[in-house]
Amino acid sequence: MNYRMLAYFFGQILRIGGLLMCIPLIVALIYGESQTYLSFIIPIAVQLLGGCLLVRLLPKNSNIYAQEGFVCVALTWILLSAVGALPFFISGCMPNYMDAFFETVSGFTTTGATVLADIEAMPKGILFWRSLTHWIGGMGILVFAMMFLPKTQTKKTSMMHVMRAEVPGPSVGKIVPKVGDTARILYAMYIVLTVAEVLLLLLGGMNLYEAFIHAFGTAGTGGFSCFNSSIAEQSPFLQYVIILFMLLFSVNFNLYYLVFLKKWKEALKSEELKVFLILVAVVVAVITLNIRSQYDTIEHAFRAAAFQTSSIISTTGFVSENFDLWPAMSRILMVVLMFVGACAGSTGGGMKVSRIMILIKDAVRDLGQLAHPRRVKSIRLEGKAVDEQTVNNASTYLQFYVILLVLAVILVAAFDGMDMVSTFTSVVTCLNNVGPGIGEVVGAVGNYSTLSIGSKAVLSFCMLAGRLEVFPMLIIFFPSTWKRA
Amino acid sequence: MNYRMLAYFFGQILRIGGLLMCIPLIVALIYGESQTYLSFIIPIAVQLLGGCLLVRLLPKNSNIYAQEGFVCVALTWILLSAVGALPFFISGCMPNYMDAFFETVSGFTTTGATVLADIEAMPKGILFWRSLTHWIGGMGILVFAMMFLPKTQTKKTSMMHVMRAEVPGPSVGKIVPKVGDTARILYAMYIVLTVAEVLLLLLGGMNLYEAFIHAFGTAGTGGFSCFNSSIAEQSPFLQYVIILFMLLFSVNFNLYYLVFLKKWKEALKSEELKVFLILVAVVVAVITLNIRSQYDTIEHAFRAAAFQTSSIISTTGFVSENFDLWPAMSRILMVVLMFVGACAGSTGGGMKVSRIMILIKDAVRDLGQLAHPRRVKSIRLEGKAVDEQTVNNASTYLQFYVILLVLAVILVAAFDGMDMVSTFTSVVTCLNNVGPGIGEVVGAVGNYSTLSIGSKAVLSFCMLAGRLEVFPMLIIFFPSTWKRA
Repeated sequence: MNYRMLAYFFGQILRIGGLLMCIPLIVALIYGESQTYLSFIIPIAVQLLGGCLLVRLLPKNSNIYAQEGFVCVALTWILLSAVGALPFFISGCMPNYMDAFFETVSGFTTTGATVLADIEAMPKGILFWRSLTHWIGGMGILVFAMMFLPKTQTKKTSMMHVMRAEVPGPSVGKIVPKVGDTARILYAMYIVLTVAEVLLLLLGGMNLYEAFIHAFGTAGTGGFSCFNSSIAEQSPFLQYVIILFMLLFSVNFNLYYLVFLKKWKEALKSEELKVFLILVAVVVAVITLNIRSQYDTIEHAFRAAAFQTSSIISTTGFVSENFDLWPAMSRILMVVLMFVGACAGSTGGGMKVSRIMILIKDAVRDLGQLAHPRRVKSIRLEGKAVDEQTVNNASTYLQFYVILLVLAVILVAAFDGMDMVSTFTSVVTCLNNVGPGIGEVVGAVGNYSTLSIGSKAVLSFCMLAGRLEVFPMLIIFFPSTWKRA
Repeated sequence: MNYRMLAYFFGQILRIGGLLMCIPLIVALIYGESQTYLSFIIPIAVQLLGGCLLVRLLPKNSNIYAQEGFVCVALTWILLSAVGALPFFISGCMPNYMDAFFETVSGFTTTGATVLADIEAMPKGILFWRSLTHWIGGMGILVFAMMFLPKTQTKKTSMMHVMRAEVPGPSVGKIVPKVGDTARILYAMYIVLTVAEVLLLLLGGMNLYEAFIHAFGTAGTGGFSCFNSSIAEQSPFLQYVIILFMLLFSVNFNLYYLVFLKKWKEALKSEELKVFLILVAVVVAVITLNIRSQYDTIEHAFRAAAFQTSSIISTTGFVSENFDLWPAMSRILMVVLMFVGACAGSTGGGMKVSRIMILIKDAVRDLGQLAHPRRVKSIRLEGKAVDEQTVNNASTYLQFYVILLVLAVILVAAFDGMDMVSTFTSVVTCLNNVGPGIGEVVGAVGNYSTLSIGSKAVLSFCMLAGRLEVFPMLIIFFPSTWKRA
């Protein structure tokens, strides 16, 4: 482990974190919420000072290998969440530090699970910071940082290791040869889409503050709202806008770059996109039929089905309906969609459509090989052979994913004696960065405030493991990781 | 596909099936249940006649390859279940053929899920047949058949393919070089253990009929009882006897052969056995503490915990307590144990302890390789390197297992609008050949009688897929399987 490099890295990250936290401070200033100024100023000062001290430790050897890439990513996310929790804690908005940490992890990982029972009672600056974490975490903290890192000091291949560990999906392709340029292009598209949503939300009657909060929540596929009822009381127009953008942010951003390059045909040929859209269409149709009798018009049933399907598969977690009251079939489909998640290279969570496609294709291939041992075939995705390392990683991912799921469910059951559905879905929803679960406690109209500290710690770990796709969060537990190089 | 060989094979199996069905006929004769004679005589005649006709199709080429091994096993189990259902159907004990088929599949696969609400109202001959299917299915129908197949007509390697497809566990080792001898040794040990249990149950006050029913249920790790209340009203002595034998039948039978050869040390060194016993001990301790307040004495709480833990991890499914009333923690542990299952090479179901060990070791190894790409390591189990084909099969198994689980849960939710816990656990318990689920409908005191025909078909498929460890039941859906060689 290259400790000097790690420290230098954290320095860079802390400086950026400190600057980002100035945005909610400005919001607090605009709204004249003087009681919260200090809750931002203290952590800003800590981050900028700490950052400037750490970057002085410029390392002799600035190489980052695969292992360091994972560790950098895991620790950066933990560190930024720990510091990002300070405004919630100092302002007294959360009763203890664990709650504040849980909320911040939920924000950065774009989960959207909240410990707040009365959101509307919170200061606007605090809620703005809460939603901004979604926006930062969605595209990636480190991808963000890469736009600003001095090019000369870190090698391209080093940065690729970091990017690979943070960008969701079974394999990461750079859009353009340079990592920094790739990061800039990704963020440019991200900003354009976010601004487009802000404008449409304004058009639908939200004020600028509400429009930003909900655009951040959609863009990062997070799901924090500034309303206690989430999106339930918003107009059909606003609900359709959010449905559209939840789906748009579930798509691989590389496809938007193809569209930008006017390579429409290539973008629309995407196998993953097709499967994703067919899946959404089928589930919306089935749920619409299944819940039809609970709604006054077919349009309302369709909108309810479309909203919740998009919200869950994109792992956003906005709530327009109390889907806990839906028939078992619809609720079970919701839980299944939580696992599926969005497309690779999007801001969505879950297992990712393409990873599931790889796992299914791999399973079918291996079954064929069991029957015909001499046949050797490779798996094809998006018209290309998938390399065996990617296939193997996907199955390792599944193995750890199941292990984590089981351990977390047992621990949450041990810490809190909730009903079985709440126990199971609280873990599922956190591990997949969705937000709301199903059941009495953590369902559509519930929240995580009543859970014990132990469960909140377990679920925070699950959220981080889900967002970083398991491996980085596990590698930090290997003793060999911490040996000096 | 070698169709003549397949037909010849089925002929042999049908003759054996016909002979086995004479046993419950004798029981019916002893108890003078004249109304059920015909329900046995008709299927016996069908099987013996059909069998004798089919074995005349002696094939020129008697080779069985891996693919044919899988197909033979899958179709044999479906065929014998279809014929084995006839006594239940003809006697009028079940309202329709699907119920009878479900019950027979549940019997042969040693699941123990029942559609009977009032078991004690059934004729004794019928219940004896129901329990005998557990005993036959436990060690394997085809392993049974191998004891009688003429040695000269089928090659040893051919039979190995069949055995590999039927005997549970990630890898199958022959005990002795000849497959037929291996089968005879396995059944000899199986009979000795079963007789020992019968004697102890007689000692505990059961009559011979009840002792056989419960010994069959334990030996096959099935769980059919002749009492409506399963084991709940039996004496503590009888409960402890059944606990002991449920655990004994969860152990790899190869270890008993080592004990028979007086290689005690080698048998006790088994890594899988150690993990299995530690797991049982830990879970029993945790559940005892968790349910302590619900019971009058600590002994009763311990016995309840030990009985249900052994019953679930061995995938037997006998019920001594209404564990639906236990705290969430204990119920969640029950569900986790359903997935774990018994040791490889036992009569128990589930994923098998050693397969889970391989999956965990594989995941940890692959994670290490992600961090240190140049390191190459193999997995060790029982002091030996596990070959990569076995590791790969285990992960393919997990992939299909998850796919099946998800599809089956969706289908059962679509066919029956049960509560979520019943929907989920009915699939889990059938896929792992346990029997009782958790929840209002299929829980400890429930049964499967109210489920729709569609759900019963889906769950029957799950039971077969679980017992045959997924691959054989899937290969029959490959069109390429059915091409003529």
